[in-house]
Amino acid sequence: MNFGENADTICALSTANGMGAIAVIRVSGPKALEITSGVFSKDLTGKTSHTAHFGYIKSADGQLIDEVLVTVLQKGKSFTGEATAEIACHGSVYIQQQILQLLLENGCRMADPGEFTMRAYMNGKMDLVQAEAIADLIASRSSMAHSLAMKQMRGGFSRELQQLREQLIQFASLIELELDFSEEDVEFADRTQLNNLVREIISVVARLKESFSTGNAIKNGIPVAIVGAPNVGKSTLLNVLLNEERAIVSDIAGTTRDVIEDEIVLDGISYRFIDTAGLRETEDVVESMGIERSYKKAKEALIVLYLLDERNTNAEATLNELTDFRSNYLNEGQQLIVIVNKRDLLSEAFDFLAEYSPVFISAKERSNLEELLGRLRESVTISGVGEEDVIVTNSRHFDALQKAHSDLLKVLEGLENGITGDFVAMDIRQAIHHLGSITGEISTDDLLGSIFSKFCIGK
Amino acid sequence: MNFGENADTICALSTANGMGAIAVIRVSGPKALEITSGVFSKDLTGKTSHTAHFGYIKSADGQLIDEVLVTVLQKGKSFTGEATAEIACHGSVYIQQQILQLLLENGCRMADPGEFTMRAYMNGKMDLVQAEAIADLIASRSSMAHSLAMKQMRGGFSRELQQLREQLIQFASLIELELDFSEEDVEFADRTQLNNLVREIISVVARLKESFSTGNAIKNGIPVAIVGAPNVGKSTLLNVLLNEERAIVSDIAGTTRDVIEDEIVLDGISYRFIDTAGLRETEDVVESMGIERSYKKAKEALIVLYLLDERNTNAEATLNELTDFRSNYLNEGQQLIVIVNKRDLLSEAFDFLAEYSPVFISAKERSNLEELLGRLRESVTISGVGEEDVIVTNSRHFDALQKAHSDLLKVLEGLENGITGDFVAMDIRQAIHHLGSITGEISTDDLLGSIFSKFCIGK
Repeated sequence: MNFGENADTICALSTANGMGAIAVIRVSGPKALEITSGVFSKDLTGKTSHTAHFGYIKSADGQLIDEVLVTVLQKGKSFTGEATAEIACHGSVYIQQQILQLLLENGCRMADPGEFTMRAYMNGKMDLVQAEAIADLIASRSSMAHSLAMKQMRGGFSRELQQLREQLIQFASLIELELDFSEEDVEFADRTQLNNLVREIISVVARLKESFSTGNAIKNGIPVAIVGAPNVGKSTLLNVLLNEERAIVSDIAGTTRDVIEDEIVLDGISYRFIDTAGLRETEDVVESMGIERSYKKAKEALIVLYLLDERNTNAEATLNELTDFRSNYLNEGQQLIVIVNKRDLLSEAFDFLAEYSPVFISAKERSNLEELLGRLRESVTISGVGEEDVIVTNSRHFDALQKAHSDLLKVLEGLENGITGDFVAMDIRQAIHHLGSITGEISTDDLLGSIFSKFCIGK
Repeated sequence: MNFGENADTICALSTANGMGAIAVIRVSGPKALEITSGVFSKDLTGKTSHTAHFGYIKSADGQLIDEVLVTVLQKGKSFTGEATAEIACHGSVYIQQQILQLLLENGCRMADPGEFTMRAYMNGKMDLVQAEAIADLIASRSSMAHSLAMKQMRGGFSRELQQLREQLIQFASLIELELDFSEEDVEFADRTQLNNLVREIISVVARLKESFSTGNAIKNGIPVAIVGAPNVGKSTLLNVLLNEERAIVSDIAGTTRDVIEDEIVLDGISYRFIDTAGLRETEDVVESMGIERSYKKAKEALIVLYLLDERNTNAEATLNELTDFRSNYLNEGQQLIVIVNKRDLLSEAFDFLAEYSPVFISAKERSNLEELLGRLRESVTISGVGEEDVIVTNSRHFDALQKAHSDLLKVLEGLENGITGDFVAMDIRQAIHHLGSITGEISTDDLLGSIFSKFCIGK
């Protein structure tokens, strides 16, 4: 990988695809200002950083392509750390293509996906966690996902990892000091103290590791399953919830929300409804089979909405059904909300459900949905989401934390079994390596390739 | 309509909708810099025009929304002519909405469609023709449409209209001078000279008016019809042409062309294929009916591709068919290209078609398509497209030119019939009015409303 003075100069469309009033093409690299000046009506090379220049883009044969505003960002002062020109042109797809074509003809190369961010990382403008947070920030659809990504972009998680690494390095240096004097059979490091330190580090790593299920749910939407007998109103309830959001969300003209089917965002949290055995399909399948399938799918959910209706007034049968579901299908950590879609019945008929504190609604008449939404929100808080702690949202980070965790358990085991220092030191170095791979203090071309290839072009 | 110091401050997303690496939100109006400073980490009000400032957008409760780059354009130096802030934020739809929401809470109003451009017009930064050309420029999909729009945006058409108007005003002043001395029965203006001047102006207006059919075809694609008997290979030919373009057009990664069904762009000109009687449908309809429908649709085309095949070797029948088509269906100005989709036959079998100079192809084997594409391109040149003259592309301009043309014919008639100067002067003033309405020297709120409502928000 070439960077610094040897890097080539890259360009790409950085705004969303398609037609807008304006579009921005970003050019970054040692020759960004020379190449842009070559197609622009003014010489930009000597311009002060952070200044904008109005002028014309012309093709080699003198044809006027567009009137544009070019912002100059000098080396060391841009996002990538390289000299950068940001060309704001009219938002015609034709013009975008023509300008990119001209830049390519004048010595630019099309940027690979995520290459601007990768260069920012290579030039020390950010670490890998921060770089990955940019992709998450751009993809964020709810305020909570946004705020997690923002925290990571601003370095919250990186600082936490940095502290862990420093503690481990300190620990390793003590062990390694012992190795130097191994023939003298001295112990510089107090074993009990070492033991405590490792336990402390392990507990932090474990907490981070465990935060992933929450972090992942926030990032991708909290999985919710609606289960219940056929014709109990599952698909009606789903549609009602989806419509409820559309009524709540006040769209600002000119921006359209990326609509994800079966996702709702309430109070900044997104909920993703799991398709349990064709919620939207006709429900005339064999009854038992339908329920079975739906129960199995529910295992992937963090929240399960269990829907009953007026056919469930038989206390014994209904309680048995619920007990059976809880013991055979509900996982630890899953929140269960029992809903009675009661239509015309009185709530008293369901007094026997008291221990489940059911929510009484009428999906069809859209009544009492506020209580249901409140309960959804509550379930999330119970699940531990919304804490101020650093939360892991990225599966690559989770994998590395898991590896570091198992390395540290080996260290602990070694200490407790009195294994010699050199073996302990190896495991510590492994743990340091895995933690370092998260922020990119240790990285390989392969790793970088796999991280940045998931970005869009222009980032 | 309020503008100048009394205008309110407007904001909108100016880049394309959806997710990108970055997005740009434009704020324009007397308080643009105050309002933007209110949500930004730095005070922008006193900053030099054309400078970019890195900082943070925070919500009222101190929550960090995004890291952004804001470009300051001071009053008189921006696109709209007003103080403007351009906020380049991360391209998440959530962030776009949050920033717009904050700006609205701090005193901005959402911009109406085209309102930035309307303000540019109101503040004398451009005339109406130039403003309308911006919308055309953004919508342009072919190099010829782009170059026409660019010419108009740069004022080519406006200058031509300005000249016409000046000549008419000079003419009117001569006539009106006569009126002042009407009792003395003098003629200041030489009638023959006046006559010649009006004829000259009429011929220019007529040329502009006539250029509209060409201009409209360039802007919206040149309508092409493929006609011929069922099963002659019309839909195969269409598909082959559409694929041919896809093979020619080298897409630049990161930009996607707005794909218009049945449109191809070749050598900078876009051709729009008219769906003649279900080109893409199965062709097992009653034969005569199919042909009839297809012929009728062909009347809308500028170019008609008449497809024959190996069943057409009977010279008399085929020539009769073509003669019939030419006399009953082909309009004046329409270009006819006869194509023989000859499959395995020798061209000699069609020597009788010499007067039509047919193109021999095999749609199925994609052979000899270059000749066909060349003929398409030639037909366009014959139709008068591609000249260096100013070309009218806007139906509003065409209407105004038509009205001015008829006013001028009345003037000419008046002069020739010796009608008194005051009536002649009235007609001249009408013509001046209609020409002035094109560039917006004369405009009403209704007219402006109808023009700018067709723009997108953010323009």
